Amino acid sequence: MTGDPRLARLSINHKTVEGWPMPDFVDGVAAAGLSALGTWREPVAEYGLERSAKLIRDAGLRVTSHCRGGFLTATDPAARAAALEDNRRAIDETATLGAESLVMVVGGLPAGSRDLLGARERVAEALAELAPYAGERGVRLSLEALHPMYCADRAVLSTLAQALDLAAPFPSAQVGVVVDTFHLWWDPEVWRSIARAGDRIASFQVCDFLMPIPADALMARGHMGDGVIDFPPFVAAVEAAGWTGAVEVEIFNADVWAQPKAEVVETVKQRFLDVVLADAVVPDGVLPDGVPA
Amino acid sequence: MTGDPRLARLSINHKTVEGWPMPDFVDGVAAAGLSALGTWREPVAEYGLERSAKLIRDAGLRVTSHCRGGFLTATDPAARAAALEDNRRAIDETATLGAESLVMVVGGLPAGSRDLLGARERVAEALAELAPYAGERGVRLSLEALHPMYCADRAVLSTLAQALDLAAPFPSAQVGVVVDTFHLWWDPEVWRSIARAGDRIASFQVCDFLMPIPADALMARGHMGDGVIDFPPFVAAVEAAGWTGAVEVEIFNADVWAQPKAEVVETVKQRFLDVVLADAVVPDGVLPDGVPA
Repeated sequence: MTGDPRLARLSINHKTVEGWPMPDFVDGVAAAGLSALGTWREPVAEYGLERSAKLIRDAGLRVTSHCRGGFLTATDPAARAAALEDNRRAIDETATLGAESLVMVVGGLPAGSRDLLGARERVAEALAELAPYAGERGVRLSLEALHPMYCADRAVLSTLAQALDLAAPFPSAQVGVVVDTFHLWWDPEVWRSIARAGDRIASFQVCDFLMPIPADALMARGHMGDGVIDFPPFVAAVEAAGWTGAVEVEIFNADVWAQPKAEVVETVKQRFLDVVLADAVVPDGVLPDGVPA
Repeated sequence: MTGDPRLARLSINHKTVEGWPMPDFVDGVAAAGLSALGTWREPVAEYGLERSAKLIRDAGLRVTSHCRGGFLTATDPAARAAALEDNRRAIDETATLGAESLVMVVGGLPAGSRDLLGARERVAEALAELAPYAGERGVRLSLEALHPMYCADRAVLSTLAQALDLAAPFPSAQVGVVVDTFHLWWDPEVWRSIARAGDRIASFQVCDFLMPIPADALMARGHMGDGVIDFPPFVAAVEAAGWTGAVEVEIFNADVWAQPKAEVVETVKQRFLDVVLADAVVPDGVLPDGVPA
């Protein structure tokens, strides 16, 4: 399996191996024969930004995403200014790491607020401030639509179509979108939205959606094959839309986090080959008319 | 409050007072000065169909919805035939009760299946069998889009737009849609969809969406005002679309179910007047262009 050339397309997000110190993470990904990883701000800061960037570079790895910016819905002016400043730092980090994009989780309703439309407007306004800053530094922001069960507390951005509308005013090199199977699998419009996304796709993340949803809904993610998502249509759809980048695996799951990290990476590799890249008939309706399945 | 003429628009779904025996439920709704209720199949069957219909009629109440038909995604031919037959019985009940519509929860993925597109196709096929049967009996089916967190286990129908697409082949008198705040509040397309729905709206159900989502996600509903939903825009939007029917309150919540039933009804009345019908500025983007807020 390690020599399978298809593994060149696989990236491991640090969250999948939560708690693995940065040097072990980088060594582990390289030792597994992989060439890409996704970073999170906290472990990067803990190990040191420049030091992390050098470590990853020296290992010959590339950073497919840096997680995460966002949380742009505050109404309080001081909180809003702080959020924007924090996002500028996240953009700077993304540039230093040479990451392909900074994933943006836009934020939920402020505490006690029910003004969903207002929260969405504030995201758009904040993006207008951040996108040029990112562009000047060669950084691409990738807007992540989260599953609607997180609309109140994490992201008022709930569908890929909405992410594309939000991205539309900006150059594609400044603002792209994430296609994340966990968040989007249920959406009847997702195939149309992926086709529409085209070169706006800045990140393709996968993990499975577990049932029943656990008490902590954030932890409803699992290894590909353990849940309800049919992955090959997503692979076919993003490829038909022009995506040639990595498939990044990001799993929030306490059981996975408790396992030996190298074993988790091996399971991810196996599932990537057997489940995500499985030979499968792509159902009608997934690909745009005229694109062979 | 009891004399407030606006209460003529309020309907209490039996699920809100789960466990109240049919005669007490009917008496309680009438004693609260209300004129409408929503029924569920199990308590109707327990008390007797004809007997329930007479009881409700004699109390001068109308039935705004009968809950529920659906669960139409089985692949096994015997299970599918049984589901269709069960839905025909639910349609018959709806006719006997004189209910304004039969709410349809279409069903999730069959156990072990990941074929979401196939499940959706089977719903459409089943509807093509059931809609004429309903039409012959003067019954209207109302398709209920459920929150996407129920996509795998309850309803592969996740948005109002998708419900309208599913309803489109049938006469509006045969197949309508439910607008349920709990399921739809997060949807960035919901305002456009409500405007598009027009006379397809067959039921308007409300309750609030509680955060955090409890371990049993089915129980994430609460009294209006206890969660994150802004109700007045929904009232304005369905009215602008032409809806003049009832506002039906359906709450799944173990704490609510444990309270004295008459108190629950009083709370619902109060919240209906104070929260749902609150005077509020309708945000831009909710109503179609040209409709004054």
